[in-house]
Amino acid sequence: MATLHHHAFCPHSRFVRLVLGEFDVAPELVEVRPWERRQEFLMLNPAGDTPVLAADGALHPDSDAEGAAPAGAAPLVLSGAAVINEYVDELLGARHPDRRLLPGGIAERAEARRLTAWFNEKFFAEVTTYLCTEKIYKRFMATELGGGPPDMNGVRAARANVRYHLRYIGFLLRDAPFLAGARLTSADLAAAAHLSCVDYLGDVPWSEDEAAAAWYGRIKSRPSFRTLLQDLVPGMAPATTYARLNV
Amino acid sequence: MATLHHHAFCPHSRFVRLVLGEFDVAPELVEVRPWERRQEFLMLNPAGDTPVLAADGALHPDSDAEGAAPAGAAPLVLSGAAVINEYVDELLGARHPDRRLLPGGIAERAEARRLTAWFNEKFFAEVTTYLCTEKIYKRFMATELGGGPPDMNGVRAARANVRYHLRYIGFLLRDAPFLAGARLTSADLAAAAHLSCVDYLGDVPWSEDEAAAAWYGRIKSRPSFRTLLQDLVPGMAPATTYARLNV
Repeated sequence: MATLHHHAFCPHSRFVRLVLGEFDVAPELVEVRPWERRQEFLMLNPAGDTPVLAADGALHPDSDAEGAAPAGAAPLVLSGAAVINEYVDELLGARHPDRRLLPGGIAERAEARRLTAWFNEKFFAEVTTYLCTEKIYKRFMATELGGGPPDMNGVRAARANVRYHLRYIGFLLRDAPFLAGARLTSADLAAAAHLSCVDYLGDVPWSEDEAAAAWYGRIKSRPSFRTLLQDLVPGMAPATTYARLNV
Repeated sequence: MATLHHHAFCPHSRFVRLVLGEFDVAPELVEVRPWERRQEFLMLNPAGDTPVLAADGALHPDSDAEGAAPAGAAPLVLSGAAVINEYVDELLGARHPDRRLLPGGIAERAEARRLTAWFNEKFFAEVTTYLCTEKIYKRFMATELGGGPPDMNGVRAARANVRYHLRYIGFLLRDAPFLAGARLTSADLAAAAHLSCVDYLGDVPWSEDEAAAAWYGRIKSRPSFRTLLQDLVPGMAPATTYARLNV
């Protein structure tokens, strides 16, 4: 069985859970607090951040068509959302072509990758890293590791930035039902993973873009989303609409 | 013919020039100053950063085996170092399997991608973005866009960080001649692209890691590196060893 070293409110970990969920893979989840920089986790990923996937079972690179890894084979350790996404799509997308998260055409694949990176890198740098760090992670960090009350300047900047990302999502949806075109791709999952963290905190101004809100309602109603919506920040309830489906 | 919208000291642009150079593609170069946020460039890439490749000629997705695009076909616009790298490797790597920059095995490809991202994202965030912005870009930025003398705190942090990255390169080279194994991959090109910017400024402490220095000497002696080493920052000479081959 595969193991995902993750944090419940790390948006990149959420993205990987969605990617795996679309292929009906439910990994064993091991919680990591990346800010603690534990030696055993740094041995898995010297970059020190989540997610890290120990690919075993159906995700092992030498697994057979029934999804069994060779007896005694060590799992393959994979780090980083983009690397894991490409790997899973190559391995499981080849077995289930109807579920591929990166399209078959080379130009369409490039567009899906561009938008996946848009959310995993740009949206992260402008929105999620502020909100998750300031409003969630800092509650659990020791003071000497940077814990404490949120820096409201970062929170305010993120709340301003999320509005233009929401408009960009609305713009992308003018011509197609999904962000990169006619079919679900990893771009939709990346965007929804990041937005789900922000939505938990009640910081997505959904009323400002109807198309984006309707698209998110569709994505979060997918079975792959179910376990994400059950995760809670101890001591902090989600916004009221967070886990409501088809809003 | 393909066009690369780049900046001569944007490390991600340098990486793409190396990737293209390994396939003997010399794009037309158009200089962009991303900090000016010009409308015509934002139309090509709403993220606003370099590199952007207008893929035409042999790089057009519908080009034939002789490298000609269909008559009248518009170039395909691709943004971002990782997206362009995957695209070029899929398109030209399929035509020249001996030059592939992402290896054929799924596990080896994941490792090459991990290390490519290590340099394009982590090294960038910890080293190149400080040094290129503070010591190069700011010389050419208008004051109202952030120009002025370098912030030496950023420069000092980058100079400290580059040392541990150099040790990591030395560590990777203990078991293999290239960063991701027995063959050249995009990981070597990404690392060398970023280091080349830092080396221009004289900020790589090469004497601290002999293996890393020898590896860099080999990479910068490749023909794909030639045009990079000719680029100059107006009014700022490179460090003496910058363009010396096989040091």
